[in-house]
Amino acid sequence: MKIHMDLKEHSYDILVQRGILAHAGEHLHLDRRVLVVTDSGVPAAYAQTIAGQCKEAVILTVEQGEGSKSLETFGKLLETMLAHGFSRKDCVVAVGGGVVGDLSGFAASAYMRGIDFYNIPTTLLSQIDSSIGGKTAINFGGVKNIVGAFYQPKMVLIDPDLLSTLPPRQISNGLAEAVKMALTSDRVLFELFENEEIGANLDEIIIRSLQIKKSVVEQDEKEAGLRKILNFGHTIGHGIESSGNMAELYHGECVALGLIPMCAGAIRPRVIRVLEKCGLYNLIAFDWDKITQAAFHDKKADGDAVTVTLVPEIGSFELRKMKCIEVIDMAKACFEG
Amino acid sequence: MKIHMDLKEHSYDILVQRGILAHAGEHLHLDRRVLVVTDSGVPAAYAQTIAGQCKEAVILTVEQGEGSKSLETFGKLLETMLAHGFSRKDCVVAVGGGVVGDLSGFAASAYMRGIDFYNIPTTLLSQIDSSIGGKTAINFGGVKNIVGAFYQPKMVLIDPDLLSTLPPRQISNGLAEAVKMALTSDRVLFELFENEEIGANLDEIIIRSLQIKKSVVEQDEKEAGLRKILNFGHTIGHGIESSGNMAELYHGECVALGLIPMCAGAIRPRVIRVLEKCGLYNLIAFDWDKITQAAFHDKKADGDAVTVTLVPEIGSFELRKMKCIEVIDMAKACFEG
Repeated sequence: MKIHMDLKEHSYDILVQRGILAHAGEHLHLDRRVLVVTDSGVPAAYAQTIAGQCKEAVILTVEQGEGSKSLETFGKLLETMLAHGFSRKDCVVAVGGGVVGDLSGFAASAYMRGIDFYNIPTTLLSQIDSSIGGKTAINFGGVKNIVGAFYQPKMVLIDPDLLSTLPPRQISNGLAEAVKMALTSDRVLFELFENEEIGANLDEIIIRSLQIKKSVVEQDEKEAGLRKILNFGHTIGHGIESSGNMAELYHGECVALGLIPMCAGAIRPRVIRVLEKCGLYNLIAFDWDKITQAAFHDKKADGDAVTVTLVPEIGSFELRKMKCIEVIDMAKACFEG
Repeated sequence: MKIHMDLKEHSYDILVQRGILAHAGEHLHLDRRVLVVTDSGVPAAYAQTIAGQCKEAVILTVEQGEGSKSLETFGKLLETMLAHGFSRKDCVVAVGGGVVGDLSGFAASAYMRGIDFYNIPTTLLSQIDSSIGGKTAINFGGVKNIVGAFYQPKMVLIDPDLLSTLPPRQISNGLAEAVKMALTSDRVLFELFENEEIGANLDEIIIRSLQIKKSVVEQDEKEAGLRKILNFGHTIGHGIESSGNMAELYHGECVALGLIPMCAGAIRPRVIRVLEKCGLYNLIAFDWDKITQAAFHDKKADGDAVTVTLVPEIGSFELRKMKCIEVIDMAKACFEG
């Protein structure tokens, strides 16, 4: 399955195919110096499989976790390329989840003002979400993704076989973004979640999610408008995630909670049933003060009002400018009403 | 005088006007948070004049010199913006020479994946050369400009009045790039150098040089081909500059020496007379072994051969692929023959 991202001179293909990792060299131009970036949580065999197909590979394994999205690790990637004499014609391959992809993409964008970047996402979340869109970044001064570049990969390879080593909770974490996209844009995908066995339909879920995201990003590469719908559920979700006392929840689990209040009351029971089926309906003791504070430190907050995405019916959306406090009240009413 | 850079969605204007610093707010959108970056060698009044026209200005003064083009200082700029709550809608203004412009532009490109950047170059070299082209960068691991981004400013303001505080040698340093561009592309500008008083014609020299660079950059934004002619004289010049024992020479002085051997023998006497008039003909004891080694560590070297720009007649050029050793032999013959 090939999905073509049409972004003029930044166009590229996403190939979705089981087993493609072992054949990456047939699709990527690896006959040069290649920095293979991975993290300590990814099976080492994945990066080695890529390295074995390169003319001259250097594998750099960063620590698993957000801590690696730092200016220091960014410097380490650049240092490694410099030490191995990388030229403008060499490239970077990310083999890992969102952290590895974001970090490697930013380093590729900056080394010699931009060398080729390939992304091979290994988690469901990154296969569905962060491998598309060209947003690369590191964290800085305690703020997520505050420093980075819009930089498109030359190609993305998605191998659903790599998901077999993921714990179930990591699969759920990725499914949250797929449910999010189904709710705003794809009734058929939502019904698949309702009616079919999820584990047996991962390829279909990945492909349909990518197609939604493709369509949104193509229309709004630099995040000027429509792309806001990709943040559906993220205002409250981000507030929960950053409120400090929810360290035990994953990003997808927070987003899942965040999208419920944004759906019309009539469809909420269906939404909750799907989230339960995905392992994503984990109610918590909401601390609304902390959530409010964390949600609206968000860089997308615009003065006292924010634009949120609402879902009136499955597969449709509405962008609405609301006061921050109204958004919180809506969430409170949903969970406590 | 307005020069429009036509780079599709990255288009911008360069305004050349004496006294424009004091009226910057009429041209730049300063009604927001503004990081004004300058260095310790630039009169402090320049940055203050800009700050006085902003809604909310933060002045950051970095150390004069290449040392400030570092990952550390880059981090300091980002930190300052973060500490002052800069959003995507705020901006960075560079008030200084190439170092300040390169550093600030890269920080603006990366903060929140890109905020507005304005450049107000204060040296003749940066007014002529580095304020156009969108090349931003820092040095890293001892290599110049190895990390950065292609990132266009939203507007460039050039105030030739600011040059009045520059020492004459700094003026010469900038003239080298103008002579370089005249040689490959503008016979009329070269004849101005031959026949007119230079100090009285700086505005004309700046404008004609910008027009040449504009035309080259518009045709080749990402440095794929034609832009190589902007490196005319830089292969040998860079070799002289980086050979280690020429620390006393400025960049422009090295480039001036580097372009002589690349001109046809018949025009060399005219070229040398113009360089003398500009204060740029400073013969040195050439150490060819060191120059060779330094020149061809250049990232533009392509295996054993390099593409150099030759000038057969004033105002014309020829790109030729030559062996590194042939380039050096040509330079040796020129200076020692």
